[in-house]
Amino acid sequence: MGIRNDKNLVIYPDEFGLATDYYELTMAAAYFNSKQVQRRGVFELFVRKLPRNRAYMVVAGLEQALSYLTDLKFSEDVISFLRKEKSFSKMEDDFFEYLRRFEFTGDVWAVPEGSILFPNEPLIRVEAPIIEAQVVETFLLSTINFQSLIATKASRITAAAGNKQVIEFGFRRAHGPQAALLGARASYIGGCAGTSNTLAGYKMGIPIFGTMAHSYIMSFEREADAFLEFSKVFPEGMLLVDTYDTLDAVRKIAKSGLETSGIRLDSGDLYALSVESRKILDEAGYRGTKIMASGDLNEYIVNDLVQRHAPIDVFGVGTELATSRDDPAMNGVYKLVAVKDPAENGSYRIIYKLKTSPGKKTYAGPKQVFRFYEDGLVNFDIIGLDNESFSDGIPLMNMVMEKGVVKSRLPTLDEIKGFHASQMETLPLQFRKIDLVPEKFPVKYSDKLEKITSTFRPQ
Amino acid sequence: MGIRNDKNLVIYPDEFGLATDYYELTMAAAYFNSKQVQRRGVFELFVRKLPRNRAYMVVAGLEQALSYLTDLKFSEDVISFLRKEKSFSKMEDDFFEYLRRFEFTGDVWAVPEGSILFPNEPLIRVEAPIIEAQVVETFLLSTINFQSLIATKASRITAAAGNKQVIEFGFRRAHGPQAALLGARASYIGGCAGTSNTLAGYKMGIPIFGTMAHSYIMSFEREADAFLEFSKVFPEGMLLVDTYDTLDAVRKIAKSGLETSGIRLDSGDLYALSVESRKILDEAGYRGTKIMASGDLNEYIVNDLVQRHAPIDVFGVGTELATSRDDPAMNGVYKLVAVKDPAENGSYRIIYKLKTSPGKKTYAGPKQVFRFYEDGLVNFDIIGLDNESFSDGIPLMNMVMEKGVVKSRLPTLDEIKGFHASQMETLPLQFRKIDLVPEKFPVKYSDKLEKITSTFRPQ
Repeated sequence: MGIRNDKNLVIYPDEFGLATDYYELTMAAAYFNSKQVQRRGVFELFVRKLPRNRAYMVVAGLEQALSYLTDLKFSEDVISFLRKEKSFSKMEDDFFEYLRRFEFTGDVWAVPEGSILFPNEPLIRVEAPIIEAQVVETFLLSTINFQSLIATKASRITAAAGNKQVIEFGFRRAHGPQAALLGARASYIGGCAGTSNTLAGYKMGIPIFGTMAHSYIMSFEREADAFLEFSKVFPEGMLLVDTYDTLDAVRKIAKSGLETSGIRLDSGDLYALSVESRKILDEAGYRGTKIMASGDLNEYIVNDLVQRHAPIDVFGVGTELATSRDDPAMNGVYKLVAVKDPAENGSYRIIYKLKTSPGKKTYAGPKQVFRFYEDGLVNFDIIGLDNESFSDGIPLMNMVMEKGVVKSRLPTLDEIKGFHASQMETLPLQFRKIDLVPEKFPVKYSDKLEKITSTFRPQ
Repeated sequence: MGIRNDKNLVIYPDEFGLATDYYELTMAAAYFNSKQVQRRGVFELFVRKLPRNRAYMVVAGLEQALSYLTDLKFSEDVISFLRKEKSFSKMEDDFFEYLRRFEFTGDVWAVPEGSILFPNEPLIRVEAPIIEAQVVETFLLSTINFQSLIATKASRITAAAGNKQVIEFGFRRAHGPQAALLGARASYIGGCAGTSNTLAGYKMGIPIFGTMAHSYIMSFEREADAFLEFSKVFPEGMLLVDTYDTLDAVRKIAKSGLETSGIRLDSGDLYALSVESRKILDEAGYRGTKIMASGDLNEYIVNDLVQRHAPIDVFGVGTELATSRDDPAMNGVYKLVAVKDPAENGSYRIIYKLKTSPGKKTYAGPKQVFRFYEDGLVNFDIIGLDNESFSDGIPLMNMVMEKGVVKSRLPTLDEIKGFHASQMETLPLQFRKIDLVPEKFPVKYSDKLEKITSTFRPQ
């Protein structure tokens, strides 16, 4: 037995301290050495540019981010590992003692999961002792970037499907089992009715759906026997009809008298096959039998089938959803916007920070997003300083963690899903249509922010 | 505190039974009910079509697949969950008792990790009692598809980089923390020299690299102070020079006399900046100081920089590698190719299986891949039956698990990486060039396979 089971497969909570880019830890050591332990850092997470063709993003992953912040620590094993790394050879014991006692004690502001946001709008703001705020960067980005990516894709696909159900089917093409699980969560937030991922049902209560695979059909000598045996045990299961010849299989079902709640088409011309199948089923009295379609579906194909009134009741969407195939990365970044130095009387002196790299410029200062509505629809957003206020401008970020503790009950997954659905109703049609080149939603910076940023001179 | 820590973030080994598509479990129940418990199934995992522009794939993820198979079980919690699901309401106690005692007892054949393969070539073959072989489908696909996807991308990028180092930098854009970890592993197999992912260093011994982020520079009032402080603690660290003005920062370093092993360019025209930076550094006597480049790099940009002789020593590649951005899904499928029914004297009667779905046809029977070389280069492959043999044709799949137990020591990660490097040397140039439309590598089916498949008639 040459393998150490699970070690290379499971990330255990006591390893969270190392679930980060190495530079976060070397910077932690450098901050420690330059006596910045008391200094507080304010970081903001935002997306500079949306994935291709997206007009909006759907925020997801906050629950996992807070779970990570709550449990983050450096175990003895982890500390021993770092001590042995050449980079840390110059660090003294006091640094490793600091890591041993490390916990996240900061404050976190965030927009609720399920929110619709636009480029450059902060979705999370972290204020904490600068080392703490720094080391959490990588994990927060990975968690928020990924779930927001998938929630955004799901939102587009379910918008295209209209009143037809969409089920997430992508476990096998997701980027590993955890991506499948978190992707199922994000898909549900984005409007999917459920998932094929059993673990997502077990852990998160997401409705789970399963039909059958070709292998089950093939394990029988006769296709009709496979249908019969399966429907005896699972009358509410859907029978897969494309193993050999789709319409032939539908006719076998229609003739059989067996009880089934649906059939699944998985290849070929889904429009033509759904129309033909519906006819065969209806003529045989299987009017209540639903038709599910799957096989490399995405928002464009779903939109086309819906526009042509294909008699498809449920769409199973796998690869394209689980990987956000047309653009598989949400470009979130996490940038320092201010530091706060201890001053007299327990107060802090705030210093605004920004970078001026070509094409990667940032705006300084702790920010808030203010949203303005007209006739129930989102009209425009203003990104301002967190201490600004605008009449009619509704601030989107709330404090969700205070001194390292989650502030109040987090919404349930169904509440988050419901919130996203209500957000979609506030989005003007031109930003929801998936068959148009997306319009740019109007987001502007407040005058104060523009002024602070334009007068900055690096030294 | 509204959150159940880690439950929704970590997949624990005793939950592996549910880390699968729900239909695998409903099929398990249906197989159980139709008395197929003794029947053995033979399944093969292969990739029908490679991601866009790829001429070959690199196999990775086998270690994690075997780890999963070794530890797969259904805990009491998991069984209680299934019992309560409506789909399982008709199942009797004996099925849940079967799950309680469930373990994977099958045989597994596989090509070694790091292998180069082509479309339709089986990379794993599983033979087990059909329920066992069926329920492992989803997890195996997810693990093998993802790691092979990233190893393939890494192989292309490192091939483009030639003798320059490539470091995997993609944690923050990977599809969650586990994808980041497994992606770092796959990138290393595919030729990367290391990763920024600390956990991959801790768990797998992959060399870890870290420089610094813009936030560290920005936390200081003066950029030069940031460089100085950092280089005191980490003289072997690389200084990030693009926070404000790249060449200005390089000049500050050149003037400072500080000790540093390198600088990192992260934006702008990387070619021009590397040439200018090299000049400034060399003139100040920093001849040994390396230049690293990062920022949305991929195989095409790396190739271009290398062809133009940009004085870049190390490439940091993030998003494009960690997500395989230009095509983020490996299209692996897992198909039943035969069943074996118990016959007299403990022997089995084998029945070949295949599907004929339009565009998704499969070949029947347990297969082997035979590779033929000429002058040390791969010439062509033949996919034949596992009991065929060809003079000069080297079989690529070996038995790696027997009756649920890993057969022999698995190769170390460095051995796998070395094996992939040696595989690349056998690949003719036209399949390695990334700036050409890929040529199709000649793979044919044996006459026997063609005959079996063409004479199949579904019922």
